[in-house]
Formats: sequence, structure tokens, C-alpha cells
Amino acid sequence: MSYSPIISELIESLCCMPGIGRKSAQRIAFHLLERDKEGAQKLSQKLASAVKDIKHCERCRMFTDEDLCLICRSSARNDGTLCVVESPADVMAIEEATGFKGKYFILMGHLSPIDGIGPEDLGLNKLEFQFKEEDITELIIATNSTVEGDATAHYLSGLAAKYQIQCSRIAHGIPLGGELEYVDGGTLSHAFFGRRRME
Amino acid sequence: MSYSPIISELIESLCCMPGIGRKSAQRIAFHLLERDKEGAQKLSQKLASAVKDIKHCERCRMFTDEDLCLICRSSARNDGTLCVVESPADVMAIEEATGFKGKYFILMGHLSPIDGIGPEDLGLNKLEFQFKEEDITELIIATNSTVEGDATAHYLSGLAAKYQIQCSRIAHGIPLGGELEYVDGGTLSHAFFGRRRME
Repeated sequence: MSYSPIISELIESLCCMPGIGRKSAQRIAFHLLERDKEGAQKLSQKLASAVKDIKHCERCRMFTDEDLCLICRSSARNDGTLCVVESPADVMAIEEATGFKGKYFILMGHLSPIDGIGPEDLGLNKLEFQFKEEDITELIIATNSTVEGDATAHYLSGLAAKYQIQCSRIAHGIPLGGELEYVDGGTLSHAFFGRRRME
Repeated sequence: MSYSPIISELIESLCCMPGIGRKSAQRIAFHLLERDKEGAQKLSQKLASAVKDIKHCERCRMFTDEDLCLICRSSARNDGTLCVVESPADVMAIEEATGFKGKYFILMGHLSPIDGIGPEDLGLNKLEFQFKEEDITELIIATNSTVEGDATAHYLSGLAAKYQIQCSRIAHGIPLGGELEYVDGGTLSHAFFGRRRME
């Protein structure tokens, strides 16, 4: 191979990013070296500082550089309502799309006995501690609608029932603007049996 | 927004890569922080060292960390045959696919008067100096088959003629395995008029 070793190593390192294969990595490396050395330098610094400083929020497990994340520190947010999601990206999606003003709990995954991921790994002991010690009145479960997400939701609803906390799961059905004809059978069947009375 | 500023800055910096938008950048950032901190750290170091050490080969303009690149330094390569390409990625593609054993010259672009890119910007004065001072007998032009690539090829062939250097351009036509029915009209017409006698 006729690359300089520094470039080979850069291309290999770029492949650690999800969705980036060898060809894309090469394109990115050449682009940065040829047209955006400043951006590359900045990216290098930001990566280093994120790796060094970012940890999980002690309360909700969100990424943060302090003990508590911005949402957990906010006094404008309702402590009594807790939304449980699988990943930080889900928090961002809910924040952008809804006017939710409660707090979050991020599982950083879902229950998956096959992969050896149990309740402890998702911080559910921490969550149960919050149920017990704090004044939480409502739990909104927003795990994904996969087999593991469903199992996790089921486990969470059991936990909530134990502490008499009202528990709901976000609705699944036909997406807005979706056409029945093109929706998969599972979703359509779910939407059909989960129909709601019009008032 | 409820990100920690360090994460926001990381996501913004990741967007400097071609093909990476905000959503992908967020996914990459969360992936690296959650699952591959080691990879992120390594990437940060490799980026910094590439930005610091990588420059252009004095002879062929390839990326390298020394004065001359590996190919230009190689004594196993034929000095008399020069292949001109637009970008370092093209060198890699030719190296992988063909058994070419000559040397390269990388334009790092193409002639484009509209964008103010003239012969000097492509290092063609350097190339002409090589034509004049060295024993180059054959020039293979492998610029892209775009309007600018064609114009650049035309300019290069003029330059080669000036120094009585034999000059050829890589063939354009139907890709191997391609079906006539699905090939665009321009390519088909080009392949038709550029037909070669079967022997």
C-alpha cells in the first residue's frame, strides 16, 4: 500500500465511527487534509475533551460534564413526571418534538437476557430508589417498539405498580400522514385493535 | 437545548466531515461516548498528528509525511511513465486495480476558470519542469470524464506534445458487466464512436 503510515492510521481510526466504512473514511481523511485542516484540528480537540470530561448524570444517566445534567438541574421542570427512554438521542427527539416538561431516565439500552443485560445494567435499581424515596406520580415509558423494548416496558410497568405510580406507554400506530396501504401488517393490526373512541 | 456544551461542540465539529449531517453526527457522538471511548481517543490523536505532519510530496503532490512519498522514493518504479490523476483517491484506485508500475502526478483538482483554478494551482508548472528536465517518455491521463476533466486532459496533451512525450487517456465506454439498455446515452454514444477493431 502506498499511503504514508500516518494516513493509513487516520483512515483506520475513522472507521471506528458507526456507518463509516473504508471508502468513506478515505474520502473523509482526504477531504479534511486537503480542504479543512482547521476543522480536523477542532474535531481532534473536541473528541479529546469529550472523552475526558463526559460522564453520566448521577440521576438520569444522560451524558453530561457535571454531576447532574442540565435537565435534572432545572427547577422549571416537573419532578413528579418521569419519562423513561432507551438512549440520549431519544431524549433529544422528545425534547424537540413535544412540550414535555417533566424529567427523564435513560436506560442506555434495553433488557436483553441473551446479551446478559439485566435490570442492574440499565440502572433500574437507581430508578427504583427514586420511586421509593421521591414523589414521582407518573411514569411515561417511551422505549422502542421492539421485542426488547416491549419486555423492558413490561418490567418497568411492574416496577411502577409496586410503588402505586401511574404508568403509561407512548402510543403505537399509523404514523401521521402514513397511508394504510403501505403500512406493515404488524403496525396496522396494532393500530386496529388499539383504536380509540372518537368524541 | 439540553446537551452539555461539550457534546454540542463535538456534534458540531463532527459535521465538518463530508457526508455527515447533524443526525449522523449525533449518532456518532453518542456511539463513541457510550461504546468506544478508546476509538474516539485514538481518532483524536491520529487527526492531530495527520494535521500536523501531513504535507504534499514535492514531486507528485501526493499526501505524505516526508519530502517525497513512498511511490516517488521507490526504485522499483519506472520513472519514464507518468500517470496524471485528479485526487489521491484516484491513485489508490489505480494502485488497487491495475498493475501500473510507473509514477504519478496528482493535480489535486482540475482546471476550472470559473472557480479561478488555473494551471499554476494544479502544479502544472512543476509538471512541465519534469517534462523538460527528466526523461519522461509516456504520459497517461486519468482525469475524470467531466467537462473540467476533459479540458484538463486537453491542456495536458498539449503540454506533452510540446516536449514530444507520447500521451494517452484511459478509455471511456461501457463498464464491464454493464448492459447497453441501462447505460446513459452519452456513454453509449462515446463507446459507439470509440469502437475498436477486433483482432
